[in-house]
Amino acid sequence: MNHGGIKIFAGSSGRSFAERMCKYLDAELGLSEAITFSEGNTFVRIGETVRDKDVYLVQSIGLKPNDEFVEILFWVDAFKRASANSVTVIMPYFSYAKGDKKDEPRVSIRARVCAESIELAGADRVVAMDLHSHQIQGFFKKPVDHLFALPVLSEAILQMNLTDPVVVSPDAGFAKQARKYADYLGMPIAIGDKTRKDHKEKAEIMEIIGDVRGKTAVIIDDFTITGGSIVELSKGLKARGAKRIIACLSHLLVNEKGVKKLEDSPIELILGTDSVVNPHIAQSDKIRLVSVAPLFAEAISRIHRRESVSPLFERVPDGVIKSSLITD
Amino acid sequence: MNHGGIKIFAGSSGRSFAERMCKYLDAELGLSEAITFSEGNTFVRIGETVRDKDVYLVQSIGLKPNDEFVEILFWVDAFKRASANSVTVIMPYFSYAKGDKKDEPRVSIRARVCAESIELAGADRVVAMDLHSHQIQGFFKKPVDHLFALPVLSEAILQMNLTDPVVVSPDAGFAKQARKYADYLGMPIAIGDKTRKDHKEKAEIMEIIGDVRGKTAVIIDDFTITGGSIVELSKGLKARGAKRIIACLSHLLVNEKGVKKLEDSPIELILGTDSVVNPHIAQSDKIRLVSVAPLFAEAISRIHRRESVSPLFERVPDGVIKSSLITD
Amino acid sequence: MNHGGIKIFAGSSGRSFAERMCKYLDAELGLSEAITFSEGNTFVRIGETVRDKDVYLVQSIGLKPNDEFVEILFWVDAFKRASANSVTVIMPYFSYAKGDKKDEPRVSIRARVCAESIELAGADRVVAMDLHSHQIQGFFKKPVDHLFALPVLSEAILQMNLTDPVVVSPDAGFAKQARKYADYLGMPIAIGDKTRKDHKEKAEIMEIIGDVRGKTAVIIDDFTITGGSIVELSKGLKARGAKRIIACLSHLLVNEKGVKKLEDSPIELILGTDSVVNPHIAQSDKIRLVSVAPLFAEAISRIHRRESVSPLFERVPDGVIKSSLITD
Amino acid sequence: MNHGGIKIFAGSSGRSFAERMCKYLDAELGLSEAITFSEGNTFVRIGETVRDKDVYLVQSIGLKPNDEFVEILFWVDAFKRASANSVTVIMPYFSYAKGDKKDEPRVSIRARVCAESIELAGADRVVAMDLHSHQIQGFFKKPVDHLFALPVLSEAILQMNLTDPVVVSPDAGFAKQARKYADYLGMPIAIGDKTRKDHKEKAEIMEIIGDVRGKTAVIIDDFTITGGSIVELSKGLKARGAKRIIACLSHLLVNEKGVKKLEDSPIELILGTDSVVNPHIAQSDKIRLVSVAPLFAEAISRIHRRESVSPLFERVPDGVIKSSLITD
Amino acid sequence: MNHGGIKIFAGSSGRSFAERMCKYLDAELGLSEAITFSEGNTFVRIGETVRDKDVYLVQSIGLKPNDEFVEILFWVDAFKRASANSVTVIMPYFSYAKGDKKDEPRVSIRARVCAESIELAGADRVVAMDLHSHQIQGFFKKPVDHLFALPVLSEAILQMNLTDPVVVSPDAGFAKQARKYADYLGMPIAIGDKTRKDHKEKAEIMEIIGDVRGKTAVIIDDFTITGGSIVELSKGLKARGAKRIIACLSHLLVNEKGVKKLEDSPIELILGTDSVVNPHIAQSDKIRLVSVAPLFAEAISRIHRRESVSPLFERVPDGVIKSSLITD
Amino acid sequence: MNHGGIKIFAGSSGRSFAERMCKYLDAELGLSEAITFSEGNTFVRIGETVRDKDVYLVQSIGLKPNDEFVEILFWVDAFKRASANSVTVIMPYFSYAKGDKKDEPRVSIRARVCAESIELAGADRVVAMDLHSHQIQGFFKKPVDHLFALPVLSEAILQMNLTDPVVVSPDAGFAKQARKYADYLGMPIAIGDKTRKDHKEKAEIMEIIGDVRGKTAVIIDDFTITGGSIVELSKGLKARGAKRIIACLSHLLVNEKGVKKLEDSPIELILGTDSVVNPHIAQSDKIRLVSVAPLFAEAISRIHRRESVSPLFERVPDGVIKSSLITD
Repeated sequence: MNHGGIKIFAGSSGRSFAERMCKYLDAELGLSEAITFSEGNTFVRIGETVRDKDVYLVQSIGLKPNDEFVEILFWVDAFKRASANSVTVIMPYFSYAKGDKKDEPRVSIRARVCAESIELAGADRVVAMDLHSHQIQGFFKKPVDHLFALPVLSEAILQMNLTDPVVVSPDAGFAKQARKYADYLGMPIAIGDKTRKDHKEKAEIMEIIGDVRGKTAVIIDDFTITGGSIVELSKGLKARGAKRIIACLSHLLVNEKGVKKLEDSPIELILGTDSVVNPHIAQSDKIRLVSVAPLFAEAISRIHRRESVSPLFERVPDGVIKSSLITD
Repeated sequence: MNHGGIKIFAGSSGRSFAERMCKYLDAELGLSEAITFSEGNTFVRIGETVRDKDVYLVQSIGLKPNDEFVEILFWVDAFKRASANSVTVIMPYFSYAKGDKKDEPRVSIRARVCAESIELAGADRVVAMDLHSHQIQGFFKKPVDHLFALPVLSEAILQMNLTDPVVVSPDAGFAKQARKYADYLGMPIAIGDKTRKDHKEKAEIMEIIGDVRGKTAVIIDDFTITGGSIVELSKGLKARGAKRIIACLSHLLVNEKGVKKLEDSPIELILGTDSVVNPHIAQSDKIRLVSVAPLFAEAISRIHRRESVSPLFERVPDGVIKSSLITD
Repeated sequence: MNHGGIKIFAGSSGRSFAERMCKYLDAELGLSEAITFSEGNTFVRIGETVRDKDVYLVQSIGLKPNDEFVEILFWVDAFKRASANSVTVIMPYFSYAKGDKKDEPRVSIRARVCAESIELAGADRVVAMDLHSHQIQGFFKKPVDHLFALPVLSEAILQMNLTDPVVVSPDAGFAKQARKYADYLGMPIAIGDKTRKDHKEKAEIMEIIGDVRGKTAVIIDDFTITGGSIVELSKGLKARGAKRIIACLSHLLVNEKGVKKLEDSPIELILGTDSVVNPHIAQSDKIRLVSVAPLFAEAISRIHRRESVSPLFERVPDGVIKSSLITD
Repeated sequence: MNHGGIKIFAGSSGRSFAERMCKYLDAELGLSEAITFSEGNTFVRIGETVRDKDVYLVQSIGLKPNDEFVEILFWVDAFKRASANSVTVIMPYFSYAKGDKKDEPRVSIRARVCAESIELAGADRVVAMDLHSHQIQGFFKKPVDHLFALPVLSEAILQMNLTDPVVVSPDAGFAKQARKYADYLGMPIAIGDKTRKDHKEKAEIMEIIGDVRGKTAVIIDDFTITGGSIVELSKGLKARGAKRIIACLSHLLVNEKGVKKLEDSPIELILGTDSVVNPHIAQSDKIRLVSVAPLFAEAISRIHRRESVSPLFERVPDGVIKSSLITD
Repeated sequence: MNHGGIKIFAGSSGRSFAERMCKYLDAELGLSEAITFSEGNTFVRIGETVRDKDVYLVQSIGLKPNDEFVEILFWVDAFKRASANSVTVIMPYFSYAKGDKKDEPRVSIRARVCAESIELAGADRVVAMDLHSHQIQGFFKKPVDHLFALPVLSEAILQMNLTDPVVVSPDAGFAKQARKYADYLGMPIAIGDKTRKDHKEKAEIMEIIGDVRGKTAVIIDDFTITGGSIVELSKGLKARGAKRIIACLSHLLVNEKGVKKLEDSPIELILGTDSVVNPHIAQSDKIRLVSVAPLFAEAISRIHRRESVSPLFERVPDGVIKSSLITD
Repeated sequence: MNHGGIKIFAGSSGRSFAERMCKYLDAELGLSEAITFSEGNTFVRIGETVRDKDVYLVQSIGLKPNDEFVEILFWVDAFKRASANSVTVIMPYFSYAKGDKKDEPRVSIRARVCAESIELAGADRVVAMDLHSHQIQGFFKKPVDHLFALPVLSEAILQMNLTDPVVVSPDAGFAKQARKYADYLGMPIAIGDKTRKDHKEKAEIMEIIGDVRGKTAVIIDDFTITGGSIVELSKGLKARGAKRIIACLSHLLVNEKGVKKLEDSPIELILGTDSVVNPHIAQSDKIRLVSVAPLFAEAISRIHRRESVSPLFERVPDGVIKSSLITD
């Protein structure tokens, strides 16, 4: 497989991810550097000619979202002013996707603001994964290839050969997505639900809809920051007789406290992806990563060969699965 | 209350709604006409000067969505070329809001297409109600005042003094919204859920999560076209011992077959709003309308007086509730 | 002639036209479907990958102009989000071209509104025919290839070997265009003119400027809807001694009443093109179609081969003429 | 009549016109200067604060069209950067309106280019007169108030009390416009028409359709540059027995040779407006000017008072007619 | 002076500056809060209605430039979606102004990227001070009021009654700006200049052009980060016999090391403004601040009263000077 | 070297320059014509198909800046409407670059206005030389390749083998640029500086900083119009003992008076480029031209071959230097 023509460049938050992509594609990473000056300014410099090239910039908007977002704007501008033919922004995680609506008066729709600015800077296409809502594609005018971690994460779960497994959604809002995992995995489903006994009371009771007794519970969620809700759920599951509990998260945003909370919880394993660079996850042996870099690499390989990307949404090739095991 | 300064105009699908707004505001409807020529072309003509006026155009995108959408484009262009100071599009229903994502490859995000074209034509603000998803505000760059039928519909339900009531969501996906009704109404909640017994089987079983026996079930949904799912749900509720069943819908899109199906169902009353002009609803005595025109009128009155609209999202003034009873 | 690389897709109003184009080009029509849901919404779906392809979408804005126009917006958005390299909209007829000016206060310039929205949706080029005015090209920012039915229609007239023919323009406003036909056909010209004897009187008198006695009159017009003016003209021509009368129209928009009126008139033959799908024209044996699909096919073949399209404006190749005879 | 609030500024080609407007409005001309540096650059400077003012800039695009057009761009930018609330461009003549279509391959649509650039610079509205085609309003996205010289010129003609007058259009293309004059003036109409006896011959014959013998012919046209066609027409009219001939032109673009040709022709009077600054017209006693500055002044007075401008299109107030007599 | 109508809001980096502005204007600061979530996302919320208000947002892009820039985007979007009539961004410092050119291949023009995004978000006007180059106004399409610290800083210098003073520019590049200070202060000028003795040598020699012996040198610069160049210059000045040395900087970006270096240098006083929030400056008694908040306040007061701001560029009122003394 | 694929077209002010470029590239100049009609309108026509071609338009904005700028707009529009794939505007001189800031209130930033309009017309890239300031690249959103005459002019100077040469900057503002020449040429530097003896006096004294006695002074400037400042400087240099004086200018804008003044001055040779068509320079034997057409040709050759242009900024190939000698 020769992908010499693909020019992949890495932003400051995407270097290791881009290297994994390049490894999968047997391609060389483009020369570039991003500098933060002592007064805080970000500066980017492309290290080789990109005239008339189709450029793929890898940069998550993750745990330093403003720095990482602004860097994208500067990269795209630099590529365009350097006469690149097209610039595709590869965002394994897009943090501001969570700001996708005005759920209270007088706030900003931050995902739209970011989407617009990225397009204004000159981006021609975006590739993202497990966006907070599907509607975010509509915040972009340019094509967005929206990938899903589901097949990669599911295959990792299946390889565990869990006994009597059940997929558990943390709440009703995520039930739809959890059911998709259950369908792929061929497992039944249960739903965590916090309700108040009486509409006058404040205290919430964690209930589990569905049967978990004696089973291996596989909690599915898109992310956790403090670990709060899934740890609470794991205790509820234990209380209702679940035998083993593992968790499966698309984006590993968990902070230092959260890692500690997970360590102390009945959850025995947290499976996640490498979409975000998060130094805290190294602090827990419970956290195991699979890489979605091969999935993104396969996607841009198809984009580059002018093939359809959509088949990847449901099933991914064996090569991607095999390459998703992170060893570095 | 003097609203002489407000200039409300009606498009072809918004005339009766606009008249109800004007009645609430004691304002006069602006002169205008929309013509469909014999070869199908739409033509609009404003009948009075609007130079430097703040214009409010009332037009739902409802059961003839393309005609009604294109008419909006022409109205807005006509108002802007006639030097209106600003044009606010009042869309009690925005049919293409349902097209808010790419849930399969190679389709359009129709809500974004419509939003963009309306803004390009020159609209300065949009007022809508119960949009299919909150993210649609983000498809617009201009301010969108997003109203909710909840308080108006809820007050109508409360006036029924139902015995032992329970709010029922048709499925997990709508549970979040149903819970908001339950909170306003001070009622418990139950959720309809279709599942397959085994992941290999195709047949779906309707289950009801929560207690409905002996109760008055209040099904909440945003709309139904064929009546299919809520009628099926109503049978499930009956089977599980619900005593009475009523339904409450934001947008009455139901078609002729749907009206018939509702007539033949255990649902004894369907409560809805006048957001869409639908000739079929006159064919059923079960359907009862409350008007959200006073709600919209109150909103633009506040816009016009430079007051905050957001308080309306949770509680509406008594005057609005009183005026919401449709008698024409 | 191999045109495998050309990807032609048909919208709901362009299917048979696109098939004729494909036949001329020996190309295969792209897979796609347009659906109208029961509540009126239009939905489009592309059935094959178009990544980096140059796409040609065939869709007239004809007798259901709003549905057909909105469908174009959705198609173009879908093609662009599916990463087509370029989208060319083939509009054999563009109904709203007639709305090209503000001939009264407080109306919209509808052709500009449509042009802008089509461009905003992402169209890269438009190919149209016999637009209501030449200035409409200027409503578009993107290139518009403006084709003329004149050579195809003229060749069909020449094949009739008419005796002592004269081209007749229905009025002064169309005289310039009629003269072009006269030049191509090598025929003299006459002009119908309605005047009032006195500026105080309302009644208009139909006069014919130029000699028609004993001749075969060939009335030229761009379209008729009710048949009114050309039937009246035909009577005037008969009254002034014209021996035979035929009519030649670019766009066959004539409605049911119009077909009847033409049937009952002295006009013995109406020659027109297939630019609009019009079910009413099947009701009259007097109406004869030539196809401009080969003309459009030849144009996009030249576009695709990066050749100049402009030579087609004056003379078309024999192959186009031969293929223009409609037999289906 | 107090118009202190109106801020009228003059560009280099609009100073005397703006002064006439100010005189009509009893308003003071804003301070400003336009400089042409010795290397050819244009520079503009506003001489007083315009913060939050509604500014009217008077500048024809006339006989130095590029200088005058570029100056408009600079003025509008300067006004906007100086925080004017709105900028209305008053263009009594817009020379590039003639470039409104692609009548041959590979040319520019210059009127659209100019319209777009003026809007991009920040113009909020345009007021123009007798544009080359009505469609040019559609080249602008912003409102264009399109005035007509017809009432002012017609009243000047009526005051001549001509004996047995007839309006003459120079060709079929202008017949529609000439008929409007005939309607206002209550005169019959005749049409000049150049045809070739045989389609093989090159020589054109000037014919006059309609009766002119013994009459006073009033030739109507929008402009002449070399005088060629109307002088030829005047000879044809003389040859067919016209007793007296006068001509009436909206825009006096005639060049030095043209003035001479008109001097030597049977035309005894050329009536025109002051829409263009043309030094050559002072060289002929035959040329008589009426001013349309009062018409423009009345229009912007109505714009400023938020009144409808459209009534001016058909009838103008007596005050405007009286003020239209140029005495400077 | 009543400025109740002015609505000033503070972003996270502009709160104390905005409070000083409000104090000068006797106005109340608008309610708002900016939150940084634990995963790094910025969130902003306006605390009161701004419908149809003219809003002034105070936020420097200073020592956390990406956070502060992104926050501006979100504020502006929030204000616009909350229907503010206009949003003026008050940026006492705009850090990315330094990125105003492509001085090497394949880099971004960061100031343009930021300017464009701020405008896209919806800003209607910007007020800034001592931008890195005058051309940056041209990166904005919207009006930029460009203020200068010169009069405020100069008055502070004049109050020192320095003996035998001389203005010193650190290099030839800043000489033009230093001369403006010299003109205002009525002092002579000297210029620091680093040259190489021979074009083959690398070592640079600091020379001082002009007479400084026995004088009080007033070094003028726009900012220093590490203190490097002005400290080196101060040593050169000392070596050439300057008696006292003070420095005057527009923007105090100096970092911790820089403060230390200044402490250890022959410079006895560093005068600067409060345009940037910099915690390090509290660590040195040598640094003395004057506030430019009154200058900005006076500017927006004039903007609000529709008066010209430009007189402020050269001389500021006594009230501003008096209020510029920082006591908090 | 085969450059058949490059399509170079010349505007009216770029014909001889384009011919020199074609000669260097062994390419043929595209067919085109620009016409100025007798009423002043500019009209452009492309003489061959450009469908899908990458077009390079050569046109300086020089001594008739408005005509030349407007012509660019029309050319670009014509190329884009003729379906060119891309249009690169080659502007050896861009006169309005001087209008790059608001150095006084209420003026336009003319360079931004021009840049925007050229981009709006459809230009995809610009190639310019020695722009008035580097920031002007940032006025364009599209890539600007900014070339420098320095290497070409410097090589011409080096070939003179001047005895004891010194580079002289006319003032402090140009010192930075002069130093770059000094570095390339390996010569020392001196700076002209006008100062007032006392800040109360008006009279300015010309001083020369640096040693010029007995040397050959090489004055460097970007342009002169009247010759004023460099002639005055040359007298100062003579007075201070300079032996010979030559001047080196990027853009030869000098007017008739200026040529005369140079003729009468101590300057013995003025070296400049052919970036501007200037008829006055033929009137002086002192003026010697080198051509930068080979430099531009080499640049677009690299653009066309997708190679980096930036190496040209510092050193140009021998072939370019050799070809830069103008013999026509």
